[in-house]
Amino acid sequence: MLENKNDSARTPISTVGEFGLIDLLNKEIELKNPSTIMGIGDDAAVLDAKERSVLVSTDMLVEGVHFDLSYAPLKHVGYKAVVENISDICAMNGVAEQILVSVAISNRFTVEAMEELYEGMRLAGRIYGVDIVGGDTTSSMQGLIISITVIGYAEKGTEVRRGGAKEGDLLVVTGDLGAAYMGLQVLRREKEVWKVNPQSQPDLEPYQYILERQLKPEARADIRPLLAQLDVHPTSMIDISDGLSSEVLHICQMSDVGVQLYEEKIPKDPQMITTADEFSLDSSMVALSGGEDYELLFTMPIAEYDKIKGNPNFTPIGHITAKDTPRQLVLRDGSVVDLKARGWNSFDPDYSSDFGKKEE
Amino acid sequence: MLENKNDSARTPISTVGEFGLIDLLNKEIELKNPSTIMGIGDDAAVLDAKERSVLVSTDMLVEGVHFDLSYAPLKHVGYKAVVENISDICAMNGVAEQILVSVAISNRFTVEAMEELYEGMRLAGRIYGVDIVGGDTTSSMQGLIISITVIGYAEKGTEVRRGGAKEGDLLVVTGDLGAAYMGLQVLRREKEVWKVNPQSQPDLEPYQYILERQLKPEARADIRPLLAQLDVHPTSMIDISDGLSSEVLHICQMSDVGVQLYEEKIPKDPQMITTADEFSLDSSMVALSGGEDYELLFTMPIAEYDKIKGNPNFTPIGHITAKDTPRQLVLRDGSVVDLKARGWNSFDPDYSSDFGKKEE
Repeated sequence: MLENKNDSARTPISTVGEFGLIDLLNKEIELKNPSTIMGIGDDAAVLDAKERSVLVSTDMLVEGVHFDLSYAPLKHVGYKAVVENISDICAMNGVAEQILVSVAISNRFTVEAMEELYEGMRLAGRIYGVDIVGGDTTSSMQGLIISITVIGYAEKGTEVRRGGAKEGDLLVVTGDLGAAYMGLQVLRREKEVWKVNPQSQPDLEPYQYILERQLKPEARADIRPLLAQLDVHPTSMIDISDGLSSEVLHICQMSDVGVQLYEEKIPKDPQMITTADEFSLDSSMVALSGGEDYELLFTMPIAEYDKIKGNPNFTPIGHITAKDTPRQLVLRDGSVVDLKARGWNSFDPDYSSDFGKKEE
Repeated sequence: MLENKNDSARTPISTVGEFGLIDLLNKEIELKNPSTIMGIGDDAAVLDAKERSVLVSTDMLVEGVHFDLSYAPLKHVGYKAVVENISDICAMNGVAEQILVSVAISNRFTVEAMEELYEGMRLAGRIYGVDIVGGDTTSSMQGLIISITVIGYAEKGTEVRRGGAKEGDLLVVTGDLGAAYMGLQVLRREKEVWKVNPQSQPDLEPYQYILERQLKPEARADIRPLLAQLDVHPTSMIDISDGLSSEVLHICQMSDVGVQLYEEKIPKDPQMITTADEFSLDSSMVALSGGEDYELLFTMPIAEYDKIKGNPNFTPIGHITAKDTPRQLVLRDGSVVDLKARGWNSFDPDYSSDFGKKEE
């Protein structure tokens, strides 16, 4: 699990230089999309949007803030960084086709380490059909910083924004929630154990699903074609990167509507629930506030409910209420509380310290 | 010149939080371009390329590597970061219309500092007609890291790449070269003086032009319409960010051609020359290897020479020779040497230490 300190090949970046590194990292890049007219190697990439709207989003990831290389392999970090960006395009009901990748590294990183990072990025590119068309490589004063920009497309007018939810719409989520957060808790615990006893061999088998959700999440690129096939018309959409409650509130705020969200409807994986129990955390709070699941949250006309009924990809978790009505969470016991955002905030040093701690 | 330690308002970022900071930084953003359908506030920005090709480029800037806040005001850092990206679109003969801005900051930065940085970015946006349509704000472990992605457009087939130079073409440069590099040398010298005697009041008046070239450079967005008006058809183009010799070699490599570059033709500002003399540097070497001028270097058919003859914006500095011929610099004394790239490399700790030092 922890960083391999015994790599035989450890080539300092300075031996190849910036241009050498760029050549090395880019040599295996193949361009697949017809919209990619020209990729890396000029002042800018050249793309052809044809008749489509262009969707653009960007994310910056900082070592020690967004990822910890003592338990996240570089290949997974690269894969996840690309997936997080693709997820933003999925959340617009669009198709991601290009990314630009910028990386800043301190002198502790070797050429081999960079190749591992880019291998993860190229793998995600291949799986999601996304071309790497540009980027920048530079040195940092400390640690690894990754900035990715993704470019996607949607037939004009078909992109789905956050602000389109209407009174009476169903609130629906894909997949299950909270697993990525619990995976992180397991990794952090094992890191503490390892610090005390570096010889320990943790049994991670019981946590396989939640660890994969944390270390190698997937973007729901399958949802757009599935909704089209089912003839379902989402009215608003967002991806769950910061936590369900935070994302529901974003939709409500942008759409100027209220909401009733039902705790008992929130989809959870059994492994997430048992692990939350093990950590004395309330699994509903974890599902509401734990981020990084990269599932999609959307609203849709209630009249189309039959089209998704029983479909394992979709779980209705609430409904949109009128403008000026409250944004509420209906608890399992029927009591109603105001919905609060308690998601990820990189500026909050206390993030994830103890939210959702069960009162015992 | 040096950082003002007496700001009255110093609000820690944690008091406003990530979303608060984003709201604050974005509240003054106005969208102007018809191609910007939707900017900040959703999972992705939505753009309309119409019939045009989409040009995309990205750059990452790291405090301590690319800029030094002890002499570069944050507003200028923001302005320059945007200009550098716009310059890449100019170098494709395109028009920049959108940028996405990501920033990572350590806890020594205040809300006021971020506002100053964004003020510079917004100013560049207004001057160049570029909309800020997205970004990310996060915390860093050390220092300020800026990543900007720029989106530009060109009528299909009118973008100018690096690989189109033909035998016999004129090699032309805009503006003058080497001033940004000499401005940096002056700033570094004054910083050393200031370290020894913080009361010193440097007289920077004689260096005004070269300091402005370093701290607040401009992108040559005026060149595309000017070439169109003159009916000049560039065959290849690149911007001079790493140094003239490095960029000439990029064009030669991508175009698979040779070159004759004439030292005596390279345009230099008198202030750059006198400052180079003061530092015992060879001003031609500075113009050849000093980066960050953001002028444009392009090739054009020799048959169109009369259209630029005498135009103060353009200086022919050489000509393209056949495939498999050498890439050479013709010195003032008529001797010929191989052209060598000695430009900026962020992985080279010795960068700028002593290249171009006059042999005395």
